[in-house]
Amino acid sequence: MDQRQEDSLLISEADLQRLALQVLQHLGLSPDHAQAIARIVVAGQRDACQSHGAYRILSAAQTIRTGLVDLQARPLLQPTQGAITRVDAQRGFSPWALEVGLPPLVATTRQLGMGALVINHCFHFTALWPEVEMLTGQGLAALVMTPSHAWVAPAGGTKGVFGTNPIAFGWPRPGPYPYVFDFATSAIARGDLDLHRRAGTPLPEGVGIDAQGQPSTDPAAVAQGAMRTFGGHKGSALATMVELMAGMLIGDLGSQESMALDAGAGGMPCHGHLVLAFDPQRFAGEDWPAHQARAEAMFAAIKGQGARLPSERRYAARALSAQQGISLPRKLHDEILALLD
Amino acid sequence: MDQRQEDSLLISEADLQRLALQVLQHLGLSPDHAQAIARIVVAGQRDACQSHGAYRILSAAQTIRTGLVDLQARPLLQPTQGAITRVDAQRGFSPWALEVGLPPLVATTRQLGMGALVINHCFHFTALWPEVEMLTGQGLAALVMTPSHAWVAPAGGTKGVFGTNPIAFGWPRPGPYPYVFDFATSAIARGDLDLHRRAGTPLPEGVGIDAQGQPSTDPAAVAQGAMRTFGGHKGSALATMVELMAGMLIGDLGSQESMALDAGAGGMPCHGHLVLAFDPQRFAGEDWPAHQARAEAMFAAIKGQGARLPSERRYAARALSAQQGISLPRKLHDEILALLD
Repeated sequence: MDQRQEDSLLISEADLQRLALQVLQHLGLSPDHAQAIARIVVAGQRDACQSHGAYRILSAAQTIRTGLVDLQARPLLQPTQGAITRVDAQRGFSPWALEVGLPPLVATTRQLGMGALVINHCFHFTALWPEVEMLTGQGLAALVMTPSHAWVAPAGGTKGVFGTNPIAFGWPRPGPYPYVFDFATSAIARGDLDLHRRAGTPLPEGVGIDAQGQPSTDPAAVAQGAMRTFGGHKGSALATMVELMAGMLIGDLGSQESMALDAGAGGMPCHGHLVLAFDPQRFAGEDWPAHQARAEAMFAAIKGQGARLPSERRYAARALSAQQGISLPRKLHDEILALLD
Repeated sequence: MDQRQEDSLLISEADLQRLALQVLQHLGLSPDHAQAIARIVVAGQRDACQSHGAYRILSAAQTIRTGLVDLQARPLLQPTQGAITRVDAQRGFSPWALEVGLPPLVATTRQLGMGALVINHCFHFTALWPEVEMLTGQGLAALVMTPSHAWVAPAGGTKGVFGTNPIAFGWPRPGPYPYVFDFATSAIARGDLDLHRRAGTPLPEGVGIDAQGQPSTDPAAVAQGAMRTFGGHKGSALATMVELMAGMLIGDLGSQESMALDAGAGGMPCHGHLVLAFDPQRFAGEDWPAHQARAEAMFAAIKGQGARLPSERRYAARALSAQQGISLPRKLHDEILALLD
């Protein structure tokens, strides 16, 4: 879905950051919120991750119109207890809350070997990979998960219980690009379902069910029914784990509950978020460089047979953006500018 | 694969424990090793989990014949550092090492909210669900993973890099049966591949590749080639995470390395093992009972639409075993007895 074509323009990272900041503040967000969100959406656009790039400014505007999100909410950092750092986002967007919680999470992880950052009562806004990369950039491994809205049926069922419930993992590598994966536990991403719906193209077989519980490739029917999990009962089990760990464990909403809270307003989900971090220097000890080199040998064994590592396409786009600027679809640029009217 | 038929006998849990203990000690294992292993294989047989039940006594015997495993190895418990408890199994089987590490893991988890148990240099012997249930029995959530031998190709590749790399997760529920899943990140379990090979039946489509890198349903050809991961690139990403977290992070072998160590002897893999535990009372706080009740509501939403929770079949078998005794195939019983000759 790269749009580096004549219907796109090139914009510098600084200019896109400025534009995003201006629009987000115009929408009523406090400067801290606007800056944190802008950094995330610029990173997404830079990596040609269209579904989590500048497009998300439009999603933010839609969520703001529901009136549910507190645009001035100050994230409340609670004193770290044991390995657990907790930030109450107080019904604001998540990126600023994450930035507030990150330093104590990193400190705890270095001290204890592992740590958890719990974010409560946030409108989770972003892909998970930028969060993971904030931790790999500190030399830590990270495992991140979050629920969403109950659009996804359990294996063997027909009605939505789970969110798309993404899981992301990161591992620090020498050089600029960590090992990172970030995927939905649903068989198709919600954004891809929306793209099919808008384009009027059928879904792949096996990813959705209509409201009558029958398999369907009609994106509108599946939007009324439910998506399936990826990988059958195994994906369904992982989606359950995300509900439990990033929902009930941290005393926050599951996907059914956050959907009920939204009450059909069409906003983003409001719920919790769980970030786990691991310090390889504490786990592997002083031999960590040797063990990290063994991980590199495994990556070489994967790539040496022609397979790809996740995120490679993002990193290639990032390198291209650094050379020539960030590609932004003109239509999206116009829609973002229209928010200033 | 339940064998409650005329070709099976019924045996009490105590008698099966005694038999397993006797055979394992006869094979040369120290009493502590034999007892810990016997407890695990009896639990598997009790749950009608044939691939990880009494059958594993035969696998133990095979591994012992390779001469690689130290039958008298004393697990070396190291002082807990931060959230990390470490046991060096010293090239013994894993179950006793796990039992040694569990009390400090539980104590750390209660104190800090989360903890890690690292087991190094073990011959990992068992399904992961008994380990998970040891933690849910203490009211904790658990996430467990382990590499194995490099039988599984990355998505887009054709050569083995990953083990079957199981992931197991447990969540404490009111009543005797926790929420537990335990699955291989390979598209088919190694034990099922072996069953197809012995029975001469073809594999399902899409689970394996022959030594020339072509898709194959011939179990013998796939045993010479590679299995695939479940769920395409997502399963492949999870398998990679298991290698990194339960291999390099903890300073222990990846699946390619443990396979090289085995050098074709056909024994079990020798590597590390990672157990993560989470205390809901520390994460959710004093409202934990209310949040646990919300998890129960989610389980009810899953079951209310006719879908199943993982492990339900095991729990049904467990209840039946408690009533009538444990079902054991006569042929397997004979093979186990033959080890006493």
